[in-house]
Amino acid sequence: MKEKEAVEELELGLDFSKLQRVADKCPNVIPVVVQDWRIKEVLGLVYINQEALVKSWETGMAFFWSTSRNKLWLKGEEKSGCFLKVKEIRVNCDQNSLLFLVEKPENIGFCHTKNENGAFRESCFYRQIVDLASGKLVFS
Amino acid sequence: MKEKEAVEELELGLDFSKLQRVADKCPNVIPVVVQDWRIKEVLGLVYINQEALVKSWETGMAFFWSTSRNKLWLKGEEKSGCFLKVKEIRVNCDQNSLLFLVEKPENIGFCHTKNENGAFRESCFYRQIVDLASGKLVFS
Repeated sequence: MKEKEAVEELELGLDFSKLQRVADKCPNVIPVVVQDWRIKEVLGLVYINQEALVKSWETGMAFFWSTSRNKLWLKGEEKSGCFLKVKEIRVNCDQNSLLFLVEKPENIGFCHTKNENGAFRESCFYRQIVDLASGKLVFS
Repeated sequence: MKEKEAVEELELGLDFSKLQRVADKCPNVIPVVVQDWRIKEVLGLVYINQEALVKSWETGMAFFWSTSRNKLWLKGEEKSGCFLKVKEIRVNCDQNSLLFLVEKPENIGFCHTKNENGAFRESCFYRQIVDLASGKLVFS
């Protein structure tokens, strides 16, 4: 990994404009928390619409809505092969977000980024804030 | 609990218009997954902006942005007393969502809804889909 990339990766730079872009580009999606049903690790936060929810239900595999590509997204189909079996779908109180409990392949991480060994990271939440003022992150 | 309420509570009726409303009403918020740091249960999904993030960091207590009231929200202040100690804040790969690992009071649930005993529910994700076509939910 290049030093520049490594440095950038450990600097906080939250994208607070994302939600507006998602809302403009991909109407009628809601956020989905994806959690490993066995070890309970939160793997990531993605978006889903009715079409993807129906596909997930009918196939038992996790389909989401790609907000970057604005299309139906079978998780794992792009590169990683990290296909997810849907074990349970939970609904929040206000019915505006979902929790997917999933079973994922043991050797393939959920995240599209790779660690220093070239393996897909287990979870998208692989960094933690250690100092907000300076924006310092560490790998967790 | 009235029968009507009970029936409504077990019918799927996802609010796919929420995200657009949030984006219009509360610019510059991102979603936050709130997870119990000890038992790893996902407690809920809320929103945060820079101001609430700074307050959380500085005080060690979870502040979010209330999208219904469009104001800074110290979790627990409204009614429940479910104040959350922030143990760790994680950032996702694309820096557009956060994961709060929190310690919550043992006897107070995270959710603003109450169970049949009148206690605040532990998690907002207290129902699961058992049949998507008919929209049938069960308490999980």
